[in-house]
Amino acid sequence: MSTSESVQLIDTTMQRAAEAFTAYQLVSDTNKALFLESIADNMEAMGDALIAKASGETNLPAARLNGEHARTTMQLRMFAQMLREGSWVEASVDTAVPGKTPAKPDIRKMLFPLGPVVVFGASNFPFAYSTAGGDTASALAAGCPVVVKAHAAHLQTSVMVAEAIQKAIGSTGMPAHVFQHVTESSFESGKALVQHPATAAVGFTGSFSGGKALYDYAAQRKNPIPVFSEMGSINPVVFLPDTLHLNAESLAKQYAGSITLGMGQFCTNPGLMIAIAGEGLDKFLEILAVEIKAVVPAKMLHTGIHKAYFEKMDAALQEKGVHLLSQSTTIPQTMEALPSVAEVDAAIFLQNPLLHEEVFGPYSLLVKCTNAEELIAVWKSLAGQLTTTLMGTDKDFADHSSLLSIAPLIAGRIVFNGVPTGVEVCPSMVHGGPFPACTDSRFTAVGIAAVKRWVRPVCYQNCPDNLLPDALKQSNPLGIWRLVDNEFKKA
Amino acid sequence: MSTSESVQLIDTTMQRAAEAFTAYQLVSDTNKALFLESIADNMEAMGDALIAKASGETNLPAARLNGEHARTTMQLRMFAQMLREGSWVEASVDTAVPGKTPAKPDIRKMLFPLGPVVVFGASNFPFAYSTAGGDTASALAAGCPVVVKAHAAHLQTSVMVAEAIQKAIGSTGMPAHVFQHVTESSFESGKALVQHPATAAVGFTGSFSGGKALYDYAAQRKNPIPVFSEMGSINPVVFLPDTLHLNAESLAKQYAGSITLGMGQFCTNPGLMIAIAGEGLDKFLEILAVEIKAVVPAKMLHTGIHKAYFEKMDAALQEKGVHLLSQSTTIPQTMEALPSVAEVDAAIFLQNPLLHEEVFGPYSLLVKCTNAEELIAVWKSLAGQLTTTLMGTDKDFADHSSLLSIAPLIAGRIVFNGVPTGVEVCPSMVHGGPFPACTDSRFTAVGIAAVKRWVRPVCYQNCPDNLLPDALKQSNPLGIWRLVDNEFKKA
Repeated sequence: MSTSESVQLIDTTMQRAAEAFTAYQLVSDTNKALFLESIADNMEAMGDALIAKASGETNLPAARLNGEHARTTMQLRMFAQMLREGSWVEASVDTAVPGKTPAKPDIRKMLFPLGPVVVFGASNFPFAYSTAGGDTASALAAGCPVVVKAHAAHLQTSVMVAEAIQKAIGSTGMPAHVFQHVTESSFESGKALVQHPATAAVGFTGSFSGGKALYDYAAQRKNPIPVFSEMGSINPVVFLPDTLHLNAESLAKQYAGSITLGMGQFCTNPGLMIAIAGEGLDKFLEILAVEIKAVVPAKMLHTGIHKAYFEKMDAALQEKGVHLLSQSTTIPQTMEALPSVAEVDAAIFLQNPLLHEEVFGPYSLLVKCTNAEELIAVWKSLAGQLTTTLMGTDKDFADHSSLLSIAPLIAGRIVFNGVPTGVEVCPSMVHGGPFPACTDSRFTAVGIAAVKRWVRPVCYQNCPDNLLPDALKQSNPLGIWRLVDNEFKKA
Repeated sequence: MSTSESVQLIDTTMQRAAEAFTAYQLVSDTNKALFLESIADNMEAMGDALIAKASGETNLPAARLNGEHARTTMQLRMFAQMLREGSWVEASVDTAVPGKTPAKPDIRKMLFPLGPVVVFGASNFPFAYSTAGGDTASALAAGCPVVVKAHAAHLQTSVMVAEAIQKAIGSTGMPAHVFQHVTESSFESGKALVQHPATAAVGFTGSFSGGKALYDYAAQRKNPIPVFSEMGSINPVVFLPDTLHLNAESLAKQYAGSITLGMGQFCTNPGLMIAIAGEGLDKFLEILAVEIKAVVPAKMLHTGIHKAYFEKMDAALQEKGVHLLSQSTTIPQTMEALPSVAEVDAAIFLQNPLLHEEVFGPYSLLVKCTNAEELIAVWKSLAGQLTTTLMGTDKDFADHSSLLSIAPLIAGRIVFNGVPTGVEVCPSMVHGGPFPACTDSRFTAVGIAAVKRWVRPVCYQNCPDNLLPDALKQSNPLGIWRLVDNEFKKA
């Protein structure tokens, strides 16, 4: 397809999305819920055929894909449940005070959809953050039509999921183009999608270079739009002395597992470990080295990721002062990763920005500090992160209490005595963080709050009750939580 | 001051703001409340001297400035009250479910400040949207240090208000540089403020060209930051046939007042009126013409606004098909505006983008439509707005019900049977809207929700209770509203 044909295709697609928005913004929350549940049902009905297709395209094992598939349908049903419950619109009512000078009018606000949303799927989550994943589900829940640009690394999987969505559109009577699937893979079509006048917002999960490019395309528009790019993160883990002293073995085993889980292909992979030199750390590293040697390599998602992993890891290992601590003793075959852990002194790490960059895969760098001040300096030197983790005993946290006030500045999620891999889907989850983890740290990509990326508040002033949306009517016919004259009420 | 001196000054200022953030983010909500209240007290203690200074600089009458001063101190106390009440942090708790596979961890989130905020004051609100105005008050409440770039049109007023803030910093023991005042007025210093690495967010109220320039500077940063620019709006008002038939006289008088209030120098000024041709409209225009003739001109805020008003109005009036309907019969003196109303046929308006632009001042354009379809076409052709207003009877709204679903797409606030001028400060207010009214329609500049522009959510996973911020501790020691396992609770 030529460039002009690509751009023409995108123009037609986005015009249809804009038309669909006119109808879809009027669809009730109940009917949107039925739509999302129907997508989940259709994905389940595809059974093992869908898993097999995805496994063939991504090299991910069926067990992992079954889990991700279950998470994806759970997310769709979670947003359906959010719609049925109804309080997500953040209804707020300030009743009139006619006696005030000047008279205080009746003001009521709620959230409305932004318009058509363009979603770029993630290569490492062919279900949960791709075609019918969290971005799509949250945008459809908000009332926004969605255009998904399929990821070339799992194109046929994406086509199957798109069919599940198309079938749900038919069976639940949704506007025909409320979801559209763009399989054309050119660079130009991605840019055209972000820059089309009808596009109201963009969701992306992937690399820093990809996410930042989309952000820059959007910033060049005549009318800027929100871009939520969830990009890289090295997810620093701080190991404090007392827990290293007491738990070196269990910590080493726990982290060998987290570093190499899914061949390290998670945005929450612990790519950096920070600790103070000492006997506890020595023991931890000794056992970690043994554990990593025993990890069996597996195929990575696609050739691009495989190539980048070895290039970036090799570049890091060649930097001055970086020592390879351990690698898997199994020789990797074609497309397989090589689980590896390295170490470097803090003084060198602080001087070398290259070592701060993400190496996407089963690799982690241990930064050895001489004391607590240096540990804090290393931690604070890092760019914005999705997560940061604190491993410590009660004594550790009492001895190093300043860590607690620093942690919220570094990341969107602070994990205590656990691993950053594994992102619970719940209302309190924050999957986001300061740049460059994300392009807008004020929002999350996981959990029902992800819907807030695609909505804007609108208020009604002195609107006759019968003309108000149900969420704002005086009698609260939907029975939702509302802030009424500064009190949360449901009755 | 040379360009390099300006940039050096800004660098020192922002480095101080970053240092202040380290301390200020730890200040309790109660102490931040005392700080904001102290600013309000100090502004009140300045009494008539402050009003006189502002009146001398802005040409605004003392009565108007007294009202705006009262609104400003009210806003400061409103944010103080928000801090004391405490629920603004949106605390959310999902308790652990150890039995789940995999085990569901304990996840708790709340809002944290972004970092140093740069505020550009508005020329038309020397108090309420300038030095200690809504942007400053909301950012300080959030826990963000503030750097205000004084508006050159009321520099001495800004210096006085800055002194009130400095005094409050001293008396309430706040970090020395939690507020800083930049009086240097060069273009370069504004750009340097937005592009400094330590700047975490920007608030602006003013013209489209100014607000968009700041947005573009921020987009060029290595690390993009949120920019909330509240820019122009023509605030379209739809007059429906039945109300024009029944209430032509009162509507004309009401709108003559709104169009010329404060010499039209409000971002919510009704710059566009849309109606269907007929006897009702003829009568409305006849009385509106009479009313406008009787409005006495007054001085505008500064020479730049005065010059732009006549240039933009003259340009509009010279466009094909635009007819002057009425002007004040009093000849304006130096710096005074000339209240004016014009009319144009919808077919011409739809073809001429220049007529869609804001003429900041006491000017409004009536667009005459042949039928309801044309009225809707005119309304939908407009760019994003702060407000849109629907004037109609019950019969009108029954006859034109499609207007109700279109309205939320156009503006942040929908006014029924009133005027858009006058913005109530309350939790349900939305002062914002789709671009170009604002650079981020997901937020409001007025009301306590304005604080949400300067914060980001952070979650804690499996954090020991004693290490959690008070807002997230299991016992809810602050007694705030929290979403606990999907239920709002205060106990």
